[in-house]
Amino acid sequence: MTRFISPRLEGLSPYVPGEQPRDRSYVKLNTNENPFPPPPAVVEAARREGERLNLYSDPDCLYLRESLARYEGLEPENVLVTNGSDEALSFIFFAFKGGFIFPNHTYGFYKVFAELYGAPYEEAPLKPDFTVDVDAFIESGKNAVIANPNAPTGLFLPLPEIESILDANAERLVIVDEAYVDFGGESAASLIKKYDNLIVTRTFSKSRSLAGMRLGYIMASKELIADLNAVRCSINPYNVDRVALAAGTASLECEEYFRKNLETVIGNRQYTAERLTALGFTVIPSCANFLFAKRDGLSGEELYLSLKKRGVLVRHFKKSGIEDYVRISIGTMEDMDILLSRLEEIIV
Amino acid sequence: MTRFISPRLEGLSPYVPGEQPRDRSYVKLNTNENPFPPPPAVVEAARREGERLNLYSDPDCLYLRESLARYEGLEPENVLVTNGSDEALSFIFFAFKGGFIFPNHTYGFYKVFAELYGAPYEEAPLKPDFTVDVDAFIESGKNAVIANPNAPTGLFLPLPEIESILDANAERLVIVDEAYVDFGGESAASLIKKYDNLIVTRTFSKSRSLAGMRLGYIMASKELIADLNAVRCSINPYNVDRVALAAGTASLECEEYFRKNLETVIGNRQYTAERLTALGFTVIPSCANFLFAKRDGLSGEELYLSLKKRGVLVRHFKKSGIEDYVRISIGTMEDMDILLSRLEEIIV
Repeated sequence: MTRFISPRLEGLSPYVPGEQPRDRSYVKLNTNENPFPPPPAVVEAARREGERLNLYSDPDCLYLRESLARYEGLEPENVLVTNGSDEALSFIFFAFKGGFIFPNHTYGFYKVFAELYGAPYEEAPLKPDFTVDVDAFIESGKNAVIANPNAPTGLFLPLPEIESILDANAERLVIVDEAYVDFGGESAASLIKKYDNLIVTRTFSKSRSLAGMRLGYIMASKELIADLNAVRCSINPYNVDRVALAAGTASLECEEYFRKNLETVIGNRQYTAERLTALGFTVIPSCANFLFAKRDGLSGEELYLSLKKRGVLVRHFKKSGIEDYVRISIGTMEDMDILLSRLEEIIV
Repeated sequence: MTRFISPRLEGLSPYVPGEQPRDRSYVKLNTNENPFPPPPAVVEAARREGERLNLYSDPDCLYLRESLARYEGLEPENVLVTNGSDEALSFIFFAFKGGFIFPNHTYGFYKVFAELYGAPYEEAPLKPDFTVDVDAFIESGKNAVIANPNAPTGLFLPLPEIESILDANAERLVIVDEAYVDFGGESAASLIKKYDNLIVTRTFSKSRSLAGMRLGYIMASKELIADLNAVRCSINPYNVDRVALAAGTASLECEEYFRKNLETVIGNRQYTAERLTALGFTVIPSCANFLFAKRDGLSGEELYLSLKKRGVLVRHFKKSGIEDYVRISIGTMEDMDILLSRLEEIIV
């Protein structure tokens, strides 16, 4: 780091996204993208913005917030739109006091944000079966951050458990990161009217096939959204571009398309889990668009490297407690069959 | 603010963007947008991304950084791409120690960033003719932030003056915000190889007609870019979407189109300045795509409100020292003629 750097950034450990190699064409099952493109109506809505790009986007994101509010059964004042849900999480970790608690195995960015913004944090160990230790969250007195379904495990924490954390400490927030909820979870958005200490984050990246568009949103009480909007307007008031606003708004009108793709992904997940089990893998039951799996006698790193050599990218985390596992995104049936046949080669 | 808010955000004063009213159609000369759409090749490049939006954008923005480096005569490692240049400035104010000094009349966001990130700051009064008091910057010992050309004045500070600040304090940074440089300034990018304490920020919003796409970039030494990239990857590694990357890359191949539009804007600026002067206005000589002007006997607020009533939006800042002025973006010749005829009505 240069001599100009702020002391608060010394020793910074940035988040490392899943690799995006350019050296060859891979079957890419490492960043939990949706294998299906966005629907034609979304592509067309995005295209229509091209000739208006000389004009700023609406800094209030009003039309999209109105559409999201209708879709979620909330008011526009309960919704804030962000440049991907990473930006949503960044605003949240920056804005609120009291420190944060999250599972020791979860989305790696939570720890990066906490360190970046100097917030005290606690990593609550998952139980041996990888489920969330709810008691640790109830007892900690910190703001709880729960990816639900969790990554990289794919496990879903039922809403009554979320409610028990919300109830236990009304002076602290519960932040539920629902990036993967459409693949088999149940949203906590229904609890927003009941709890003023609940924040739900969402992304258009996964179930809505818009990872490359960078679009996320936050749902919470009007007062919490006002706080977060003040942060947003102090950092980047034009945080969401015209194309993303148009694509996001159009995508809310394409439920049938997304429902069908979700069914396909869930079907492919089921198929892959069964085939992996038959190949001797331990597979964590997943409510997300990925599987977390290991096989005795093969380290996670060996699995990852052997698959990469054979043209299939999965994600491996060099982290004690999960180092034997790989996280496999669910792609098309063709993708999954290629993965499975490569695994058969490796295992034999 | 809610009971959850961090103490550092109490009393936050967010940036207020120029108004984007929806109640009627205005001649919109208040947010310094380019009146011309992006060129067809940019629109087409943006369109081609539609069907790939299920895949993440390249978190390294490699192709665009390579194109920008060729365009600017630098290396890709001298370039960082951001979600608009506001995000670039946010990273810079967050990353570096030593406080900041900027003119008392300049882009209002600098003060917001300094307060947001708890950085000490100093507002150096502009001289009576609105030029930058370079000595104040040389003597302050803080990192200098200079919009060049400055906003809302439009005045350009010659590069030798920038160099004198760079030379005076090698332990502090000089950040040159060149949002408007293409309309008549000279870029400090040529000095990056000479000074390791120089940072230049740019935007595609103004001269490249992409305000609605949110795309900016930073140029500096490889070491400073590495620092800022660590910050970016700790906040939002996928900060720029696929469409913005494609549009930005394509726009660098359309120099003739932009050169012609720049000439038109500069011609319209000259025409408008002359007509305003003939109407009794004082007009600051501008190197940007706006004019800063006042007329004795009419307050800036009166001017702003009278024009708004007549369907023309300009920007007024309620700020001691510049409250008599309005900032008028340069639009098409038709836009400027409407403005001028409305002013004739108001003045008579």
